[in-house]
Amino acid sequence: MIIRDKPRAWELAFALRGSILPHIAFPLAGVVALSALMVLLDHHFGLLPHIEGIPFTVFGIALSLFLSFRNNAAYDRWWEARKLWGGLLADLRSLAREVEIFLPDQGLRHRILLQSLAFLHLHRRQLRRLSHDLETQTRSPELLADPHPPCSALNLIHADLAQAYAKGQMDGFGARTLTARFGSIALAQAGCERIAATPLPFVYSLLIYRTTYLFCLLLPMALVGTSGWLTPLFVGIVAYVFLGLAEVTEELSHPFGSTLNALPLDAICRAAEISLAPHLGQPSPPPLQPVDFHLS
Amino acid sequence: MIIRDKPRAWELAFALRGSILPHIAFPLAGVVALSALMVLLDHHFGLLPHIEGIPFTVFGIALSLFLSFRNNAAYDRWWEARKLWGGLLADLRSLAREVEIFLPDQGLRHRILLQSLAFLHLHRRQLRRLSHDLETQTRSPELLADPHPPCSALNLIHADLAQAYAKGQMDGFGARTLTARFGSIALAQAGCERIAATPLPFVYSLLIYRTTYLFCLLLPMALVGTSGWLTPLFVGIVAYVFLGLAEVTEELSHPFGSTLNALPLDAICRAAEISLAPHLGQPSPPPLQPVDFHLS
Amino acid sequence: MIIRDKPRAWELAFALRGSILPHIAFPLAGVVALSALMVLLDHHFGLLPHIEGIPFTVFGIALSLFLSFRNNAAYDRWWEARKLWGGLLADLRSLAREVEIFLPDQGLRHRILLQSLAFLHLHRRQLRRLSHDLETQTRSPELLADPHPPCSALNLIHADLAQAYAKGQMDGFGARTLTARFGSIALAQAGCERIAATPLPFVYSLLIYRTTYLFCLLLPMALVGTSGWLTPLFVGIVAYVFLGLAEVTEELSHPFGSTLNALPLDAICRAAEISLAPHLGQPSPPPLQPVDFHLS
Amino acid sequence: MIIRDKPRAWELAFALRGSILPHIAFPLAGVVALSALMVLLDHHFGLLPHIEGIPFTVFGIALSLFLSFRNNAAYDRWWEARKLWGGLLADLRSLAREVEIFLPDQGLRHRILLQSLAFLHLHRRQLRRLSHDLETQTRSPELLADPHPPCSALNLIHADLAQAYAKGQMDGFGARTLTARFGSIALAQAGCERIAATPLPFVYSLLIYRTTYLFCLLLPMALVGTSGWLTPLFVGIVAYVFLGLAEVTEELSHPFGSTLNALPLDAICRAAEISLAPHLGQPSPPPLQPVDFHLS
Amino acid sequence: MIIRDKPRAWELAFALRGSILPHIAFPLAGVVALSALMVLLDHHFGLLPHIEGIPFTVFGIALSLFLSFRNNAAYDRWWEARKLWGGLLADLRSLAREVEIFLPDQGLRHRILLQSLAFLHLHRRQLRRLSHDLETQTRSPELLADPHPPCSALNLIHADLAQAYAKGQMDGFGARTLTARFGSIALAQAGCERIAATPLPFVYSLLIYRTTYLFCLLLPMALVGTSGWLTPLFVGIVAYVFLGLAEVTEELSHPFGSTLNALPLDAICRAAEISLAPHLGQPSPPPLQPVDFHLS
Repeated sequence: MIIRDKPRAWELAFALRGSILPHIAFPLAGVVALSALMVLLDHHFGLLPHIEGIPFTVFGIALSLFLSFRNNAAYDRWWEARKLWGGLLADLRSLAREVEIFLPDQGLRHRILLQSLAFLHLHRRQLRRLSHDLETQTRSPELLADPHPPCSALNLIHADLAQAYAKGQMDGFGARTLTARFGSIALAQAGCERIAATPLPFVYSLLIYRTTYLFCLLLPMALVGTSGWLTPLFVGIVAYVFLGLAEVTEELSHPFGSTLNALPLDAICRAAEISLAPHLGQPSPPPLQPVDFHLS
Repeated sequence: MIIRDKPRAWELAFALRGSILPHIAFPLAGVVALSALMVLLDHHFGLLPHIEGIPFTVFGIALSLFLSFRNNAAYDRWWEARKLWGGLLADLRSLAREVEIFLPDQGLRHRILLQSLAFLHLHRRQLRRLSHDLETQTRSPELLADPHPPCSALNLIHADLAQAYAKGQMDGFGARTLTARFGSIALAQAGCERIAATPLPFVYSLLIYRTTYLFCLLLPMALVGTSGWLTPLFVGIVAYVFLGLAEVTEELSHPFGSTLNALPLDAICRAAEISLAPHLGQPSPPPLQPVDFHLS
Repeated sequence: MIIRDKPRAWELAFALRGSILPHIAFPLAGVVALSALMVLLDHHFGLLPHIEGIPFTVFGIALSLFLSFRNNAAYDRWWEARKLWGGLLADLRSLAREVEIFLPDQGLRHRILLQSLAFLHLHRRQLRRLSHDLETQTRSPELLADPHPPCSALNLIHADLAQAYAKGQMDGFGARTLTARFGSIALAQAGCERIAATPLPFVYSLLIYRTTYLFCLLLPMALVGTSGWLTPLFVGIVAYVFLGLAEVTEELSHPFGSTLNALPLDAICRAAEISLAPHLGQPSPPPLQPVDFHLS
Repeated sequence: MIIRDKPRAWELAFALRGSILPHIAFPLAGVVALSALMVLLDHHFGLLPHIEGIPFTVFGIALSLFLSFRNNAAYDRWWEARKLWGGLLADLRSLAREVEIFLPDQGLRHRILLQSLAFLHLHRRQLRRLSHDLETQTRSPELLADPHPPCSALNLIHADLAQAYAKGQMDGFGARTLTARFGSIALAQAGCERIAATPLPFVYSLLIYRTTYLFCLLLPMALVGTSGWLTPLFVGIVAYVFLGLAEVTEELSHPFGSTLNALPLDAICRAAEISLAPHLGQPSPPPLQPVDFHLS
Repeated sequence: MIIRDKPRAWELAFALRGSILPHIAFPLAGVVALSALMVLLDHHFGLLPHIEGIPFTVFGIALSLFLSFRNNAAYDRWWEARKLWGGLLADLRSLAREVEIFLPDQGLRHRILLQSLAFLHLHRRQLRRLSHDLETQTRSPELLADPHPPCSALNLIHADLAQAYAKGQMDGFGARTLTARFGSIALAQAGCERIAATPLPFVYSLLIYRTTYLFCLLLPMALVGTSGWLTPLFVGIVAYVFLGLAEVTEELSHPFGSTLNALPLDAICRAAEISLAPHLGQPSPPPLQPVDFHLS
């Protein structure tokens, strides 16, 4: 995630970090070049038909509405993913407090909290599809080969809880409280997996990119008559807005990816470690800081 | 569901798999042909009235807003269905952990988990309206003739639980926890049945297809004066956007159907089997993989 | 509710069942006739001022956005009502399973389930404002004169439960579980009553119908100059879209009404009967089928 | 709240009750008069610049979208407030049933239910900022001078419950059930207070009224060239739509106010009295009826 | 938060308090000056190309939709933050009532409630990033140096509760009720931290400010031909609407900031103090009042 203040005047003009421009530079240049070529063809050979603007207005508005829908859906995915991770953080904090009340055995408490942190890192590793991840390799090397490592971590915790309940180390009220807590954790986990495994329908991507390019490629016919050599400039601006928005949308719809706009899962995992440290009798680690405006 | 990366340049131009084009090829061709005929009639016999664009702008924007609403509603159905299945997966995982705590009898635990998986497959079979389905025929052949097979599976589980409670094999805390879990499962099940049984209001379909065709059939009158023989091209593009969106919407609004964009229920059922295997003392089966970009 | 597949070509052109056309035929004809009269006045007496399209574009877009908002709100009411009834179905199913666990007395269980079905029918009767309803007259004739019959049915159930708790036939865990279940039922019930008793603000209806008619009546001034005798056709199309959408919206905003698009409460009540039959030791009745595409 | 059927033809033309027209008559007349003056200045002295419509189209669409956003936000406040009150009604009904199960002492039960009704009326009095209110003056005169009367009523109930729990008149299951119920009531109460205390951001009101008036005052420059003396009519219609929507929005955003469109809190309080009467051994009072289409 | 009634006529024209105008005065003046310069260049040297309006209509509508999306997202953040604080208020009130039932020891009760108020102030201090805050320095000076002060306050409460549970001063029902209450508080806390720590994606800010300025800087080319010296006025109005909305959006998206439109956290903390005073045997402090229309 990019952490930057409101852009100031000179940043508006020149900031590249966090901008979408570098990602669309190539197709943008292509569209502008092609429209320049079309103006050339028109001026020298008169080959380009000149069309009135009405169909482009309707087409442009339909395209705007469609991009707007897709942008909403992508942002909702990104924000829902952030909510789920915020919920996981709250769940871990509440868990640490609840075990203090319901589990008198400190060793068991620490084991459960450490395993919960391991779960969080394994969950992060799975969502980001990391093959090499130092945290999980240190915390739970024995789980990495399991069919579903985060679930394995939660299963281990429940084996502990089942034993504690059978032995009378946890009463029924504690069993109810802790199973409800882990039920909430499992729900947030499945929610993240849903977002990671179910992209926006591919048919939307295809439809939106096809119509956007079609619009940009046909636009010169509507502009060349009145705008002349300014046509490539206007086509470039329209393409910047539409392709830029389509690209931002593409990135935000994958909130667990490796793009600059992806969610700062490392930082949230660290926040959980900070919150759980006092319950484990450990000093809290420092919070993660953005590097070059980017919080990983 | 189609699992494909962001389309690249050549895919944009030629990809058919996952595209909406094949589904609307016939009406699209019809609209284009008709508009070509209208241009012909206009050029040779001057029979076509030429109209200004203003009413088409208003009509086009109204239609865009309407399509946009229907698209939102359809996508919400699709995404809500996915959420419900994600919730079912989380419920089954939590169930497997909760029975470990509250049901000391391993045989009973296995019976309940196997029946829960049977429920999931029967639920999938009912939503997809499958008459022949190998999984359910293997897992629960005795339930297939019941008036409501998925409910029968859940009823069997509760008969087991009622007996366990009466015999003292499950305490009150366990009874509360497990009935709450199955209450959550029943809610997700009823939610899926709601989406499957209650389509988007038919009156919308009729209104949207009628106005879309009307718009495409009248559009040549606004374009022929200025665009000439480019008219069929523009009509084709507008029809592609509008009919394409209407068709995508139609597909997504039936998330349990058999179209390429329907939800991958087989894969989610398999994910549940993977998660429950360790609790059943079985090896986890491999996850389902997309075949030709399609995850069933 | 209309249960029909996606409209095919000939249905698009001729289907009336489930169409909004019959409901707006009269005002539509009026608007078209009036615009024809205006064209006549213009051509013969030159009485009609000719106006440019810009104010109509703005007016038309504002009106479209407003209709779009109202349509969203109406559809949300309709869909929320459907969700609430889906929730009631899930609640009744879960109730039937929970009483098996917590109420050992079969007679008491059957009494509660029968009374719950009676509640559902009384609730349906109240929402639809039916004076004669065979189901409720058969199931609970003694409650029909009460100030609030559905609440009376739930009160009777709770009197039974209170007695069972006092006598020790139900333990505290059961009391918690069943009061939570009926709390959920009461919430869904109050939600339905809210939708039935609180229409969309009347001021919206007035504003939307007034502006829609104003738009249709003034539109000829913008069209007559360029469209001539095609003006009534265009006015008719615009009126069809706007009045049609306003009318659909009006219908969907009353999801418990008696229109074709109202929710199929009879069918959902039947689904509840099918689900509860095994718990009552009765054969399941057949599901309701659509009659002439209509499911009541 | 206005309770009226769908407006019929003559009501469309003449209905004032529930219309927004009387509220905006003065500024509307002012805008129309000013535009007439501008036409006069233009025709006699040629002082008015004539401008093309494009900037007005963009301005008008931006304004429509903005009004549309604010309308959505206002309607959401109104509907959320209605949902919260519907939830309060459901909570009171469930409370009445739960105390029957968990509180064997009838006197205590009646005291709690009467105090709950007193709470509802005090809550209504606070939201509507009533200084004189017969119901609360009759039911709980001793609480009216408290810093927060509705909270005082709930505190009294909890003092009763705490005593009952200490004395063993209520078991732990009852304590859990009733505290959860009152937790839900307190949440709905705080939700209503949030809506009442936090208006829509003032900056929106200022921005929207300023831009609406600017648009209406500048519009004559775009229309006078082509519409002549029809300009005031069109300006009037546009001002009617925009100012009318802004005014409706203003009213709905204060759902607990004293306008005609405010929520019928009196009627909902009465519905709660009707539902609780059987539990108090009292006859149910009649439901409130609309007076001149208005339900208070 | 600004607390002001609906603006009246003269306020519309002159109100600055709560207006966005002072925040955008500088860029607005810049844009207007630049467009005046462009008109000058055009009239004297004919250097400015004149362009038709169609591309500006499409651009303007796309920009409006995009601003509209961002405004929605920002308002949702603001309103969700307000909901979370309303939920915290309800949680504290319910907590005060629940401890009366489940914790017979008054000293413990008071300690927990005072610590909860300390938590609320520490939470406010953290969200607003205050370095000097009298309330927290008075209430909990020993926690301010902790890695996460609000969590420390909640941890202290749970240490008390764990001890009470171990000693038998709180039964299992109380432990369940109070851990659920603090779970709800921790969830609201994490929700607020999420909003404070995760701004709207920076890429949106960049894209929206860049396109807004581009639009305003290019607009004179479309207007100068027909509007002449009125061009700077129109550019100024369009810039006022677009930059104003972008700026409002920027402010509302930081609901815990120090702007005039930020949430009144001081007043909500005071409301919690008022509600908890009777439970602490203290007189209620007076509610906070707006100062110069501003509630802090």
